[in-house]
Amino acid sequence: MPLTKAEISRLRSLQEKKHREALGLFVVEGEKVIGELLAAGFPFAELYATEAWAPAGTAAVTRVSPTEMARISHYPTPASVLAVGRLARAPLAPGALDRGLTLALDGIQDPGNVGTLLRIADWFALDRVVLAPDGADLFSQKVINASMGSFARVRVHTAPLAEALAGGTAPVLGCDLGGEDVHALPALRDAVIVIGSEGRGLSPAVAARVTRRVTIPKFGGAESLNAAVAAGIVCDQLRRPARG
Amino acid sequence: MPLTKAEISRLRSLQEKKHREALGLFVVEGEKVIGELLAAGFPFAELYATEAWAPAGTAAVTRVSPTEMARISHYPTPASVLAVGRLARAPLAPGALDRGLTLALDGIQDPGNVGTLLRIADWFALDRVVLAPDGADLFSQKVINASMGSFARVRVHTAPLAEALAGGTAPVLGCDLGGEDVHALPALRDAVIVIGSEGRGLSPAVAARVTRRVTIPKFGGAESLNAAVAAGIVCDQLRRPARG
Repeated sequence: MPLTKAEISRLRSLQEKKHREALGLFVVEGEKVIGELLAAGFPFAELYATEAWAPAGTAAVTRVSPTEMARISHYPTPASVLAVGRLARAPLAPGALDRGLTLALDGIQDPGNVGTLLRIADWFALDRVVLAPDGADLFSQKVINASMGSFARVRVHTAPLAEALAGGTAPVLGCDLGGEDVHALPALRDAVIVIGSEGRGLSPAVAARVTRRVTIPKFGGAESLNAAVAAGIVCDQLRRPARG
Repeated sequence: MPLTKAEISRLRSLQEKKHREALGLFVVEGEKVIGELLAAGFPFAELYATEAWAPAGTAAVTRVSPTEMARISHYPTPASVLAVGRLARAPLAPGALDRGLTLALDGIQDPGNVGTLLRIADWFALDRVVLAPDGADLFSQKVINASMGSFARVRVHTAPLAEALAGGTAPVLGCDLGGEDVHALPALRDAVIVIGSEGRGLSPAVAARVTRRVTIPKFGGAESLNAAVAAGIVCDQLRRPARG
């Protein structure tokens, strides 16, 4: 049964954040990323695929023609499968940041960087990621694709950061050029790592919450490291066993 | 004096690698990146700017109208300045990789990743970067922009990697999942760090030249780290002072 115009229009509208919010749904496309998310147990609400796609497991698939796929896809060159998920936002409980390791992203706009940071949080088994509301939208396809499946495994909250950090007991680590050597950091059990945008750095309200400024030793001429590279080095340090 | 059609056509043609190679020139656009490259002393051959751009130093500028800038720009939204540089390729001398620290990129296609890796090489003052010929072109605008000025400071060679590594005396470090703990690596004075593409990993010919396989300890579910994040963690380790 062919898709109705209304169905096609609904799926295409999910390109825009305002429609995702209104409908409570998001779209992701591509054999690799959908395969990874299904393997991670992500409960998609709808799956559309051409005959070229063989579903993993028992997911219910709506078969569409290549022409229909081209109409519902958000890309000029559609993949063989498109999945729809439900937006789910876990509220950040008061005091949640006091326990475990948190990566807090302060206005990072680049969706590829946000996805790469989710992979870092997943690799190092951080307890959660908090996104400031003014950064890239967690439910944009570019973020989900760049996360390579980590989207399904990492606990992510969206919350105003300065408020979330107020009154917390865990040290708040901020990277800048004049802090203590990151290599001297012990393997902290509880900590928040705040990462600012590359263009603007940390917002003043978040910078005011930083309790430990850390610096990655620099040997050459670059002004900065990419935000995800810096976060990776800090996380690797925090997960090192204490020196004997 | 307005630009001629031939001049406009020449500048636009530099979007494509084959024309860059034929003319021996490349283009970069944008106030920030050109400012950084001029500050780093990069000797541009030509500079085109609208009245909105104030040149740094004594660079000779060809003033163009906004309409002309729109015609020579490679972007839909042109900046106020466009610079032309000469392609310069330093040959890789035999035995060059035996001394100092080298970052070798094996077929990394994503220009943003290549630029981020140049920043890492610059930050950690590596001695050189070697790009395999099948990766992103060093002289594409996206690479130069993502390098944030490091393009002007890092010594970069383009060379077939497996041949360049043959017969070398420096250890060749490759990241994978079954190697020795990266944290156990000493601060090597001479080493080559090879980084593969995220999709395909190291090519078999390059993988065969790896003499030390190193692993970044993993705690969670991600299959891999972004290539630049992994390179940053390895470089940070190599630059650590030896433990007391």
